[in-house]
Amino acid sequence: MALHLVRFQHQDQPRWGLLEGTTIKPLNLPCTTTAALIEQSHEAIRAAAGDGAELALESASLLSPITGEAKVLCQGANYRQHMIDSGMNPDDKSFNMFFTKSPASITGPAGEIVKPAHVQLLDYEVELTLVLGKQTDGPVEVTANNLHDFVAGICIGNDVSARDVQIPQMQFHKGKSYRTFCPLGPVLCLLEKNEMHYLDEMQLKLTVNGETRQQDSTANLVFKPAETLSEYSLIHDFAPGDVLMTGTPAGCALGLPSPAVTKVAALLPESKKWQLFIKSQKRRQQYLQAGDVVESTITSRDQQLDLGKQRHTIKDGA
Amino acid sequence: MALHLVRFQHQDQPRWGLLEGTTIKPLNLPCTTTAALIEQSHEAIRAAAGDGAELALESASLLSPITGEAKVLCQGANYRQHMIDSGMNPDDKSFNMFFTKSPASITGPAGEIVKPAHVQLLDYEVELTLVLGKQTDGPVEVTANNLHDFVAGICIGNDVSARDVQIPQMQFHKGKSYRTFCPLGPVLCLLEKNEMHYLDEMQLKLTVNGETRQQDSTANLVFKPAETLSEYSLIHDFAPGDVLMTGTPAGCALGLPSPAVTKVAALLPESKKWQLFIKSQKRRQQYLQAGDVVESTITSRDQQLDLGKQRHTIKDGA
Repeated sequence: MALHLVRFQHQDQPRWGLLEGTTIKPLNLPCTTTAALIEQSHEAIRAAAGDGAELALESASLLSPITGEAKVLCQGANYRQHMIDSGMNPDDKSFNMFFTKSPASITGPAGEIVKPAHVQLLDYEVELTLVLGKQTDGPVEVTANNLHDFVAGICIGNDVSARDVQIPQMQFHKGKSYRTFCPLGPVLCLLEKNEMHYLDEMQLKLTVNGETRQQDSTANLVFKPAETLSEYSLIHDFAPGDVLMTGTPAGCALGLPSPAVTKVAALLPESKKWQLFIKSQKRRQQYLQAGDVVESTITSRDQQLDLGKQRHTIKDGA
Repeated sequence: MALHLVRFQHQDQPRWGLLEGTTIKPLNLPCTTTAALIEQSHEAIRAAAGDGAELALESASLLSPITGEAKVLCQGANYRQHMIDSGMNPDDKSFNMFFTKSPASITGPAGEIVKPAHVQLLDYEVELTLVLGKQTDGPVEVTANNLHDFVAGICIGNDVSARDVQIPQMQFHKGKSYRTFCPLGPVLCLLEKNEMHYLDEMQLKLTVNGETRQQDSTANLVFKPAETLSEYSLIHDFAPGDVLMTGTPAGCALGLPSPAVTKVAALLPESKKWQLFIKSQKRRQQYLQAGDVVESTITSRDQQLDLGKQRHTIKDGA
């Protein structure tokens, strides 16, 4: 049975805990990194939750369950409807879009997301996030059968995006990498080999000020985890604790015109085109403003896996 | 005076050496990483070259002077003429284009560059590569005055690119990150504070089978190192040994039509557009094929700094 783990601040030290319902049982493990934790067997982790003072989930100061210099590998436009919202034609798509976020953008599952002063179009993207479990040093062939060798578990990720940087500057890395733009957690759910089918059965939901904006199932992922990791292994060595964010469903604030309108806009001079883009997007009420509260959850269809709830308030940055 | 260092294979162990002319003096230093080397003072490095058997540069098996999991930060389209060659209008450009290459793409300054079997349009990009020297943990303001605090030295980099992946898939990361797509070195040139002016005075040259393809000076960089690092610090923590590749001059194999023609091409369906792109590019003889020899050099205008010579043969991959 999957382990639901959290990382929390305990007497000025980060500590791991086993989550049972709404109770955290602190783990007697010296692991300071996600990689060190993942290298423990599930039995060893369960055994380490034996004694020690329990605490209530709601009273814990939760941290990102992903530590340090994790690589944050990402997929773009991996749900059909989100592709249409992004001005793309899904039927034209013949490749798995890869990009990365900066590890410096990682933040915890609660607190603030900082909107940089120069950013006008701040957007959210809830994503099922795979936590890798194996060191590799060359291309690997990942299949449904050996997927568990490479994926240790899952958590919630929010691929926060400054659309007015990301879209006009073409390369996604900058506009998706500002500090606090990658909230992860709270739960790191470590899966057993016979539970990998859950990757296709996770229900994602994101709300802003209580209003549902995104709601979909990973059943609708265009490119699945095994084929995605096989292709990513052509260009990256994986390390335990690295993450793969698998893309976001429809419902973001971004709403680009149809491919036909985009083609006409392409005839405009660049600077004019992007002025019009920002002007038209600013009319959309869905973009995040200071004070907005973003919450997201991911659970399995059968409710056996619950990755917890992220909750962030948007704050204006310097 | 700047230190010219190399890393080479010595009795099954990587070792650092001080390069004087064409002689390598092995360093008696236990540093296994670039970060550990950079943290030594220039005096300590010079003192460590005192004894030990010297060897000839030409007989050494040279390695990348950048070790391990360095972040490879990049700038796109940072020379005016290269922007025009890439189908962009430099006068429209109002941002510094950022992307990253995978650390797994790093390779040494000699040997083979592997052209993956699915890649048809393999291209070269010689670039002045800055080697960072300071750990940061938040945004920093880098200026001409404090640049030396952040940049320890320089080396040659080649931002090898699969244009038929990079351009149609829009995000550059994949098409520029295949293994062997980031040759670095041979010389890691550590600069004194009063030598930072050299960053604007480096002469780049790249040849294919002896024919000059790229030749320019870093005087023509659009976005300079100090402002670039300031902006990169908004999204990345720097670590000693990380690198910043500052973009490539004109002369790549890639030759896109003018912005006007590109705008008309934008009216085509996506799949048709990229079929035509690949077909037209394949007519260009400049793309790299198996057996081609790529060589690049970077020296200062006054010849005081010499980053050595890269030499690679293109090999067909599996």
